Amino acid sequence: MKLLSSVPLNILLTIFLLIHHHVFSASAQRCTYIVHMDKSSMPKAFSSHRYWYSSTLESIKSADDQTSIQGPKLVYTYDHAFHGFTAVMTRQELQILKKSPGFLSAYVDDTVILDTTHSYKFLSLNTATGLWPASEYGKDVIIGVVDTGIWPESPSFRDDGMTKIPSKWKGICQSGEQFNSSLCNKKLIGARYFNQGVRAANPGVTIAMNSARDDSGHGTHVASTAAGNYVDGVSFFGYAPGTARGVAPRARLAAYKVLWNEGSYESDALAAIDQAVADGVDILSISISYRRNDLYENPIAIAGLGAREKGILVSVSAGNRGPSLWTIVAGIPWAFVVASGTIDRWFSGTLTLGNGRKFTGWTMFPARATVRNLPIVYNETLSACDSVELLAEAPDQSIIICNMTDESIEFLNVMDYLSRSNVQAAIIISKDTRRLRSTSFVHPGVIITPAEAREVISYTSNSDNPRGSIDFQQTILGLEPRAAPALSSSSSRGPGRNYPGILKPDIMAPGVLILAAYDPFNSVARIGNNVYLASDYTLLSGTSMACPHISGIAALLKSAHPEWSPAAIQSAMMTTANPLDNTNQPIKDMSYNLYEEATPLGIGSGQVDPNRALDPGLIYDASMQDYVNLVCSMNFTREQTQTITRSSYNCSNPSSDLNYPSFIALYNFDERGVALTRRFNRTVTNVGEGAAIYNVKVEVPNSSTISISPRTLVFKKKYEKKSYTVRIRYRSDRELRDQYGSLTWVEESGKHTVRSPIMVAPGLDNF
Amino acid sequence: MKLLSSVPLNILLTIFLLIHHHVFSASAQRCTYIVHMDKSSMPKAFSSHRYWYSSTLESIKSADDQTSIQGPKLVYTYDHAFHGFTAVMTRQELQILKKSPGFLSAYVDDTVILDTTHSYKFLSLNTATGLWPASEYGKDVIIGVVDTGIWPESPSFRDDGMTKIPSKWKGICQSGEQFNSSLCNKKLIGARYFNQGVRAANPGVTIAMNSARDDSGHGTHVASTAAGNYVDGVSFFGYAPGTARGVAPRARLAAYKVLWNEGSYESDALAAIDQAVADGVDILSISISYRRNDLYENPIAIAGLGAREKGILVSVSAGNRGPSLWTIVAGIPWAFVVASGTIDRWFSGTLTLGNGRKFTGWTMFPARATVRNLPIVYNETLSACDSVELLAEAPDQSIIICNMTDESIEFLNVMDYLSRSNVQAAIIISKDTRRLRSTSFVHPGVIITPAEAREVISYTSNSDNPRGSIDFQQTILGLEPRAAPALSSSSSRGPGRNYPGILKPDIMAPGVLILAAYDPFNSVARIGNNVYLASDYTLLSGTSMACPHISGIAALLKSAHPEWSPAAIQSAMMTTANPLDNTNQPIKDMSYNLYEEATPLGIGSGQVDPNRALDPGLIYDASMQDYVNLVCSMNFTREQTQTITRSSYNCSNPSSDLNYPSFIALYNFDERGVALTRRFNRTVTNVGEGAAIYNVKVEVPNSSTISISPRTLVFKKKYEKKSYTVRIRYRSDRELRDQYGSLTWVEESGKHTVRSPIMVAPGLDNF
Repeated sequence: MKLLSSVPLNILLTIFLLIHHHVFSASAQRCTYIVHMDKSSMPKAFSSHRYWYSSTLESIKSADDQTSIQGPKLVYTYDHAFHGFTAVMTRQELQILKKSPGFLSAYVDDTVILDTTHSYKFLSLNTATGLWPASEYGKDVIIGVVDTGIWPESPSFRDDGMTKIPSKWKGICQSGEQFNSSLCNKKLIGARYFNQGVRAANPGVTIAMNSARDDSGHGTHVASTAAGNYVDGVSFFGYAPGTARGVAPRARLAAYKVLWNEGSYESDALAAIDQAVADGVDILSISISYRRNDLYENPIAIAGLGAREKGILVSVSAGNRGPSLWTIVAGIPWAFVVASGTIDRWFSGTLTLGNGRKFTGWTMFPARATVRNLPIVYNETLSACDSVELLAEAPDQSIIICNMTDESIEFLNVMDYLSRSNVQAAIIISKDTRRLRSTSFVHPGVIITPAEAREVISYTSNSDNPRGSIDFQQTILGLEPRAAPALSSSSSRGPGRNYPGILKPDIMAPGVLILAAYDPFNSVARIGNNVYLASDYTLLSGTSMACPHISGIAALLKSAHPEWSPAAIQSAMMTTANPLDNTNQPIKDMSYNLYEEATPLGIGSGQVDPNRALDPGLIYDASMQDYVNLVCSMNFTREQTQTITRSSYNCSNPSSDLNYPSFIALYNFDERGVALTRRFNRTVTNVGEGAAIYNVKVEVPNSSTISISPRTLVFKKKYEKKSYTVRIRYRSDRELRDQYGSLTWVEESGKHTVRSPIMVAPGLDNF
Repeated sequence: MKLLSSVPLNILLTIFLLIHHHVFSASAQRCTYIVHMDKSSMPKAFSSHRYWYSSTLESIKSADDQTSIQGPKLVYTYDHAFHGFTAVMTRQELQILKKSPGFLSAYVDDTVILDTTHSYKFLSLNTATGLWPASEYGKDVIIGVVDTGIWPESPSFRDDGMTKIPSKWKGICQSGEQFNSSLCNKKLIGARYFNQGVRAANPGVTIAMNSARDDSGHGTHVASTAAGNYVDGVSFFGYAPGTARGVAPRARLAAYKVLWNEGSYESDALAAIDQAVADGVDILSISISYRRNDLYENPIAIAGLGAREKGILVSVSAGNRGPSLWTIVAGIPWAFVVASGTIDRWFSGTLTLGNGRKFTGWTMFPARATVRNLPIVYNETLSACDSVELLAEAPDQSIIICNMTDESIEFLNVMDYLSRSNVQAAIIISKDTRRLRSTSFVHPGVIITPAEAREVISYTSNSDNPRGSIDFQQTILGLEPRAAPALSSSSSRGPGRNYPGILKPDIMAPGVLILAAYDPFNSVARIGNNVYLASDYTLLSGTSMACPHISGIAALLKSAHPEWSPAAIQSAMMTTANPLDNTNQPIKDMSYNLYEEATPLGIGSGQVDPNRALDPGLIYDASMQDYVNLVCSMNFTREQTQTITRSSYNCSNPSSDLNYPSFIALYNFDERGVALTRRFNRTVTNVGEGAAIYNVKVEVPNSSTISISPRTLVFKKKYEKKSYTVRIRYRSDRELRDQYGSLTWVEESGKHTVRSPIMVAPGLDNF
């Protein structure tokens, strides 16, 4: 797990992806299957679903005892988020099971993958006004975090200032290895762990930390980001110092550990979500990705809809497979899919030349290195800094200038060579803005731009005794980078592969270099090649860090507006999100050196604005039947549909036109060009106080025409609903880049603006 | 200055000693001379001493303008602690000066040399009872620190909680390079710098930091130890964490910078002490050593007597030239000479084996290294750990066992080899208790004892997969080392070379690994061979760190007993000092592996006990005339005597029997053995409340007989004085080791015990 801190999360994802592949060559090979059942088919003789499922499996055994000595083995039963079970069985047994009454679908249990505190300030959360005081900081809202577990002793999970646990809570503090049930408190109100799926897939496996204890740090980081208590005096080795706090510092946390060093399986995650629903969570925060393309096999999609039916908002990370389009695997229409953006924080060191000139460069060297009044060495040969042998020629105890502008050598390699030299520090010239964000400083150094370097080299070359000092551990807020937020390069881009008909991701939240609590024994930084360092708080990047920001804000909104549905909470955040950065320019995309605008396929509706979400004016609500109607429109088989929707809902009104606060129109391009027309119906509910008149304002995507009817909505009272239609026509004889715009309902009083992004993009076939 | 933290101070001393040697080959060679004058000889025509001195020098020029083109140049005049001046002149000019009226003595300006906060707790200072509350924490007492200057921005010198500056203060906040006069406040009330001596000795020299700013850290450390304000959350890279505070947290500080990177001269120190007396300091804290043997040429001796006359207590460090006897250069009878001892604090890491066994070993690796569940490697060849090549054969990412019990290799070398390997941490076996205190961990590792190592090796050898974890940054209070305080090996031992007739050192205070403020840009630790680290607070060792503890306690006593003379304050601390350690055994000497007792030649009266010093019962006071009588007994010339005492005192009653709270009898050994008889007269003043009866209790040194008369002292009232005599007879036909005992006046009520150490030792001729 050492890689976690020093490399982008996507490398970690790759590791997880590589952990396990199912290979079953013979029909007698036993696998773990997740089985969805139609509970309405359960014979009345069974007092519970569990007896029904085990009886069903028993009958399979007796029906096929030639091939199976052991017979199917029940691993989990599920009954809250959806109906079904997980069992280990052979393919032949599965074939028999498929003929059993109530069988809907089954698929092999697959492995899951993983996708951080100035960010609250960057989101303008404050104690004086807005969402924090209005929500009492999320008091009595329960966030369930499905992840790697929790480090219960982290100061972020102390319960100072927390009131009595809400009576609705039915969860437990499950004891286990190095985890006493007394470790829960009024902040961390529940902890459970699920690894029967891991055990079923790996018979005889020893689970190294068989409890809810987080022995990686990821779950602890996510949980403390969503709802950590106030902790003074934290930092990452002197960087980002201050008081840590979660987005909803008074919300409750329940940890569900489903990710294991020994493997991570969907069946365990499903069991956790099912249990969390039964336990009574309000928000589910899931910073995990699944590889399933199909919604009817994606556990978060399936259990997520069950959770939403119970009024639980499900917030999930978009994934870290960007910057290419179509890298969101699960574009779940009923989950809140979160992209990751930067914040306005910059970690730096100051280089001071002997002539007094100062340069502020990026550095994250993880200690208070002292580099004071040392000779600066520059010559073209040495400045390659590309081998241990070359750097051995540099004078001891000097500051060397390394020129990396030709990008022929990796930053990590240069750092390695420097650490093996007697050079005390490096001034590194780089024109790559992404490199300017490197976290892996194993040797003291600062990165400066080519323009700054010209002055430094000029001084060095023209001075008899060029000298410099470098001060580390500086944190600059609000000034650098000049434009924030910007979309993280690694954040997965839409459309969603498994359902592109709803614009995903939905929203962007801070996810780059987020400081939060961590496993205090895990290495998070390195000095030289052999000194590994740990910290109670660490900086991590990825959509995993963005997701709990949204979970926390959802908890605050739930607390402020207990009557709002998950769809309403999501709508409030989306229609008030900001498409502009702190320079009032459109949010940029990090993957293109900040020159290009990010599109709704990267940032959804834009950067979340919690205080505005408190009072959105209008909301786009959706009922369970609306989601069922959407699923029914997806050309699935009856069993596939029921796997998602369950039998209690009917499919008589299929509709792909979900009442959603964003618009996406996909076209197919052929030799004649594109001629696309799409029509959307939407209904908005007035949640402002009393009467209101809204007029529409449209930013029309290039090559498009947009008709809206009516163009004025007149509300006489609160909770009144009004509908409108949108028709998008797009015509082009050339294949253009993605076109985007927006539709905004502006209240005549000017008090509320309700914005939805519009995306016109080529379909997967044209990608 | 990088060496300061990672090596004992005595190496630093050596460096200072090597900085400068005066060589003057020709009589025309100009040198800086310190000249003492008899001010009573000043002709009435002169309105001030300054005119007299400059006129005297003018007359020399005109008298000898053949040899000197420039003539003598006045550098400083002195008028508060003593009378005289410093001037640059030739030897010939000096010869003429010697014939001038009022001339007493002159000597070449010589270079000076440099000799640390759980310690307040170890000294039992507390807010509930005793000296702290009784003294209001030293409020309104001014401590002048003569040293390397001060880092005024250190949080230790903030003035939160400080009241108005006492009206008696006449000092200034002298502006200079990077030192604005606004940097002083109600804590740091004054700052001055003195480098005309350096400039005179090195014409044309550029002073790199020409102000009172401390660009080394030593002065800042000493000042904050004596009287630093409360500062939360400080540590040395995680070790010794807590709230820093000086011994007298409400006392005032005035910094006098006399030590320079460009050289340090007596004339500058003399100017500083002279000015500090004029400025109105109450305590002078001087952690500096001088190489002068003769009291009449030792600036601290000369200026120190002048200061004492003005009621100023002068506290000086014993020096760091131990453990040999006679290593105290300046055994100044009228200064408080401080030895350095350990405290009950231990810095450690915990090694946890795979079988759960834990071992606590010494470490000071300066970062939160993470060494978690790694393979432990042991084989005899590798365990030598004596070359980079050998360690290259050790597996990467392992913990290696290094056996240093044969002491064939230096710890620093082993650390260097380890840092160049891919080994992640080391378990180092050592039987050397001094090595167990090494501060130079450039690579993660812990030191364990041979007995502990047997179990570790047994586990490693008998386990299929031996694994271990090491946790760093642990601080253990009160338990280890088992006996504290112990006398530091490097602390200079008595008798004093320039005057052995008064037992020196006087007292012992904490001086080993003391945490205090420091120059925040100076390197205090290293990782690997090229990463240097800085810290706002650092751990230093030496008598330099012990001295300000005594200065701080003196400030507290001065505040609690404003009527006490410096001699009374010193007596109170000495007669209440503790000769026993925290195991109630005699204090041990670190230089002999803690097996041998320290003698009064190492610890004086013992470890200072501030709370007992508040109420000593009896004091041994001394007047200025008493010191003059002592000087008059020293067989000096009239000029030498007047250089120290000045002309205003008469020498009609010379006496070596100063009324001092300790006893030393030196003998000469010849072929017939030793037959020594010495007689002492002492007078004690009752400072207890009202009538009291004291009886004497004696611990008789071996081979000695001691007679005391009377053996009971009956006081009828406070401030009454009583005298007694002590006769020590020592007889031996063999040359024995030093013999020591004590004389204690015990109040019948049991309330007060007033102890004086007795030392019988061979004279310098027998050493």
